[in-house]
Amino acid sequence: MIVRLKENVTDKDQALLKQVLGTQDVYKIEANNRVLYQVKQLINQEEIEHLPMVEEVVQINTSYQLVSRDYKKTDTIIDLGDQIKIGGNHLTVIAGPCSVESQEQMMTSAAFVKAAGGQLLRGGAYKPRTSPYSFQGLEEEGLIYLRQAADRYGLKVITEVMDIEHVSEMTPYTDVFQIGARNMQNFKLLEAVGKTQKPVALKRGMAATVTDLLNAAEYIAAQGNLQIILIERGIRTFETATRNTLDLNAVPVLKELTHLPIIVDPSHGIGIRKHVPAMAKAGIAAGAHGVMIEAHPEPTLALSDGEQSLTPEMLQKLVPTLRRIHEILQADI
Amino acid sequence: MIVRLKENVTDKDQALLKQVLGTQDVYKIEANNRVLYQVKQLINQEEIEHLPMVEEVVQINTSYQLVSRDYKKTDTIIDLGDQIKIGGNHLTVIAGPCSVESQEQMMTSAAFVKAAGGQLLRGGAYKPRTSPYSFQGLEEEGLIYLRQAADRYGLKVITEVMDIEHVSEMTPYTDVFQIGARNMQNFKLLEAVGKTQKPVALKRGMAATVTDLLNAAEYIAAQGNLQIILIERGIRTFETATRNTLDLNAVPVLKELTHLPIIVDPSHGIGIRKHVPAMAKAGIAAGAHGVMIEAHPEPTLALSDGEQSLTPEMLQKLVPTLRRIHEILQADI
Amino acid sequence: MIVRLKENVTDKDQALLKQVLGTQDVYKIEANNRVLYQVKQLINQEEIEHLPMVEEVVQINTSYQLVSRDYKKTDTIIDLGDQIKIGGNHLTVIAGPCSVESQEQMMTSAAFVKAAGGQLLRGGAYKPRTSPYSFQGLEEEGLIYLRQAADRYGLKVITEVMDIEHVSEMTPYTDVFQIGARNMQNFKLLEAVGKTQKPVALKRGMAATVTDLLNAAEYIAAQGNLQIILIERGIRTFETATRNTLDLNAVPVLKELTHLPIIVDPSHGIGIRKHVPAMAKAGIAAGAHGVMIEAHPEPTLALSDGEQSLTPEMLQKLVPTLRRIHEILQADI
Amino acid sequence: MIVRLKENVTDKDQALLKQVLGTQDVYKIEANNRVLYQVKQLINQEEIEHLPMVEEVVQINTSYQLVSRDYKKTDTIIDLGDQIKIGGNHLTVIAGPCSVESQEQMMTSAAFVKAAGGQLLRGGAYKPRTSPYSFQGLEEEGLIYLRQAADRYGLKVITEVMDIEHVSEMTPYTDVFQIGARNMQNFKLLEAVGKTQKPVALKRGMAATVTDLLNAAEYIAAQGNLQIILIERGIRTFETATRNTLDLNAVPVLKELTHLPIIVDPSHGIGIRKHVPAMAKAGIAAGAHGVMIEAHPEPTLALSDGEQSLTPEMLQKLVPTLRRIHEILQADI
Repeated sequence: MIVRLKENVTDKDQALLKQVLGTQDVYKIEANNRVLYQVKQLINQEEIEHLPMVEEVVQINTSYQLVSRDYKKTDTIIDLGDQIKIGGNHLTVIAGPCSVESQEQMMTSAAFVKAAGGQLLRGGAYKPRTSPYSFQGLEEEGLIYLRQAADRYGLKVITEVMDIEHVSEMTPYTDVFQIGARNMQNFKLLEAVGKTQKPVALKRGMAATVTDLLNAAEYIAAQGNLQIILIERGIRTFETATRNTLDLNAVPVLKELTHLPIIVDPSHGIGIRKHVPAMAKAGIAAGAHGVMIEAHPEPTLALSDGEQSLTPEMLQKLVPTLRRIHEILQADI
Repeated sequence: MIVRLKENVTDKDQALLKQVLGTQDVYKIEANNRVLYQVKQLINQEEIEHLPMVEEVVQINTSYQLVSRDYKKTDTIIDLGDQIKIGGNHLTVIAGPCSVESQEQMMTSAAFVKAAGGQLLRGGAYKPRTSPYSFQGLEEEGLIYLRQAADRYGLKVITEVMDIEHVSEMTPYTDVFQIGARNMQNFKLLEAVGKTQKPVALKRGMAATVTDLLNAAEYIAAQGNLQIILIERGIRTFETATRNTLDLNAVPVLKELTHLPIIVDPSHGIGIRKHVPAMAKAGIAAGAHGVMIEAHPEPTLALSDGEQSLTPEMLQKLVPTLRRIHEILQADI
Repeated sequence: MIVRLKENVTDKDQALLKQVLGTQDVYKIEANNRVLYQVKQLINQEEIEHLPMVEEVVQINTSYQLVSRDYKKTDTIIDLGDQIKIGGNHLTVIAGPCSVESQEQMMTSAAFVKAAGGQLLRGGAYKPRTSPYSFQGLEEEGLIYLRQAADRYGLKVITEVMDIEHVSEMTPYTDVFQIGARNMQNFKLLEAVGKTQKPVALKRGMAATVTDLLNAAEYIAAQGNLQIILIERGIRTFETATRNTLDLNAVPVLKELTHLPIIVDPSHGIGIRKHVPAMAKAGIAAGAHGVMIEAHPEPTLALSDGEQSLTPEMLQKLVPTLRRIHEILQADI
Repeated sequence: MIVRLKENVTDKDQALLKQVLGTQDVYKIEANNRVLYQVKQLINQEEIEHLPMVEEVVQINTSYQLVSRDYKKTDTIIDLGDQIKIGGNHLTVIAGPCSVESQEQMMTSAAFVKAAGGQLLRGGAYKPRTSPYSFQGLEEEGLIYLRQAADRYGLKVITEVMDIEHVSEMTPYTDVFQIGARNMQNFKLLEAVGKTQKPVALKRGMAATVTDLLNAAEYIAAQGNLQIILIERGIRTFETATRNTLDLNAVPVLKELTHLPIIVDPSHGIGIRKHVPAMAKAGIAAGAHGVMIEAHPEPTLALSDGEQSLTPEMLQKLVPTLRRIHEILQADI
């Protein structure tokens, strides 16, 4: 349950409210210049609603609150500037290599992502690798290449943050912080990126239900940051024919439960280059607001995830088809 | 490995061949008026290939043989007559109620399935129910209603067979035998429907990998019956927000591995009426040859699976969108 | 809800009862010389309870009825004769090869199973194989070898039935019908073995919840046959280090929910010979009423499942440890 | 592959070695006063082995290296002082409440854990909660209560660290750092606790294979810290009758692959109080080196996980049974 206060409430107003709320636990949130109080339940809801500093009391019957449709009926649209928006009826294409490997690789990547019709450039500078002895990324050097390449071609940047210590260092280089699947419930990291007030793309963990994903997103939202993008990237099942099981069922389910945009990552989802386009199309047809696709100038030479990266030609062929499917769906509503 | 003989081979030819094959186990298959021998391996492959009665020796490196793309490169297209075909670039819509409940219900259903653009009418006369005390179906009476309704509206019939004993009784009533997910590895039933030489639609089991599904299909094929349709209907995972997890990843993977048509069942796959259309669209966009959808004149009154059945209006709205997505994909190849 | 009638009720009594029960669906069961009626709910429970032919009305709040603890508080003990009992505080050891391969193999197997302290001999004469081209079993010849070997060494026989057509043929050869995991929801087969009134061992399917398993057992019970043994043999999960994931959590959960005996099959459960003893011990420590173990005179020569079969020496060493753990648990209650 | 140097090697020795190793990537590890180099492969292995500063070259064919049995044949035994050891043939009982709630609660808990025969006291001061609005722990105040209670009763402390920032603050209060399942692949946190050279207990993630778990442990080991305890606490499967699926199969599999001690957590594993003892016994029978059990003075009043916490009486009754099962297994080897 969220008690939403009016604009420009004073400290005195808040003190009065807390007195009326009594002894129960409240959690204070400041979002979009508004003060909100999250409370478990209200025995005196009507009294609270009539207090002069209260705008409304929103009843929400799920453990997640601010990210639920009950809290906000309209789709959240995240505006990255330069006409690049995520959510609502916008179709977003994010593409680029798994790892940032060199300046030249990023320039080439940005060029073909832009040419294919992409809006955001992806690339990892800090890589979460299963083994400590695998390539761990170019770190800050990688961030510089990523930013330069994106700026040159009019793209926005999304890149993964693995650690609280990197958050401030990364802030000037990225437009969207990505939280990887393995860190979906690294709650301290979620709070840290939440506090930046920058857009955050949160990947669903391999064993996370959609409810778990929404509760994790709530950790970001509870810092007053509602610029959150949810990414479906495949769950772990018994099936071994594919790297993961991209769970497109999550797309319509999430669109009902939350106002946040949903992006599908078919590259990690199915993990097999030749099948990525089919799953990208299926993701858009399921209603996703966009796709995040690994693409590399020369996939066979990639330092990581080459077997699931599209070639520039494959990306170029795919994006127009995604737009046509998206148009059909828009016409359908 | 399959040794494919020429047309009109004599018993003497076969005896000679078996002599050359030596002591190893062979499995004889008669399909499309041809005799085939499945063998584990050939030490004398060249000798075999040059025998006069041998047309070709097909090397297949998977446990399943006749259903693999290695055995047959071109898509199998199943012709049900009256211009109704499944596979290749045909888009098939199968719809109807979960259970046959009455003559009137089936007539109404056939009417709206036809009006929506469907080709096959579904409906269960024998129902596999989790509890022995649940409604078990109208049995032969149900088959009569199903057949009458389909014939009246120019539709073909697909219905589930649960038991060998019913196979011959059901033969005049159905155009396609459906094998349910719980019976996917009921090998004796697979052999029995294989022997009928009628088309068989095989549903993927809840814990079956795509390899398991293809091996199960091989039991039908080994009876010389290659008129098999594979149905993806959702696997069991940890996710509880949906009834099952419709695994659309299986669609492009199966299309690579087999020449058989793939149909998607979004109704059981996601199990929530309002989300069925999104998953049907996603299934076609993933490359499926069609969809099988539960639809009922009045879903809230259905004796089974009402919560996942579309209304006639929902089906009417959905099918044209599926056709438009299918056209985009066809143009794309 | 079960309405349990008194002994020796007449047809007239039953007609009267059905009249009072009214129009609702009832399911009649004859078990242990008693007539039972399964009904969904009773609006007039008190009236029914006071009818002269009614012994009691048992309220059961699960979809499964006769197999639930609510129906029967005390553990079911299945008496196979010759002091061999399954359930309660008896510890049962079932062992033997995956497939019956020859008369000699079965005689050797029976000898070492008996020497190790086993009570039942297992061995498959009809084999459910993933591929139609794999060894399918010796069929009736195998049953003869199995029965002879068991009789020679004072063991009882358990063997898998895959098809209704075999039920009567197999009846003289086996003491316990085994239903395999792939057939757990082959409801027609469950009904057929239920009708024999012989003990049935029902294996949990790879994607079956414990509730699914109990509902499947109810299909057997609904034929009046309550001599049912449940077998936990591993479920399918994402873990690939083991063949299946033996789910020992099911043991205490099932013991609470049902009065039926629970046997653990560590051979299929973990699927790796050297690790089978650890899981057998764990199964008994979890509270199982026994184990079913694959053991072969020479596992490396086995026609099926050799990699998970114990050697005679391993079985000989294991059983006394199982008995010691069982004794500790008995002392503990 | 690990190149293990002799004691007291000089910088000059190392420079020479690196010259011989050539251009390939090496990863330097200092563990137990020895310098190790992890290398992908050696083209000149014999030459390296004969260098004067090299003690041995250990060939290891898995992605994880230092934690593998190939690297170290004998069981690792972690000595916490005061005769409390984990691993080898020691049986370790860790118990205590989910959350530290008050000084009194911890004193009471320590008293009954000690009386029951436990060696380590558990309790969370920083709690990873699914929702940001749930109780998040007493933080440093909680650590003080935990330490005081353990010291009073001669127990050692284990408590979860959720964030790098807390590592140094927590160091004086805890004997073992616990990494929770959600943070199993929070690689930066693994490195941070690795560097402390204190024992670390690493919980298996809900979707982690045993290989993933060992690779995560390698992140700690790569900091030269081999005092690692692995905890099996249940994986996520389709089964909903239990909170998680405690995967005891992992116990024998891990004991073969690694020299590290394995502890079983039946409380989170099955998640139902009355069934925890059965799974604890099964865990020890499967070969685990100990158990970690949630127990609370008054489970029904617990602020978190009360439904899976044992009462003091249940713990008191359980531990002697665990010791008897452990003795049987020790006698058995």
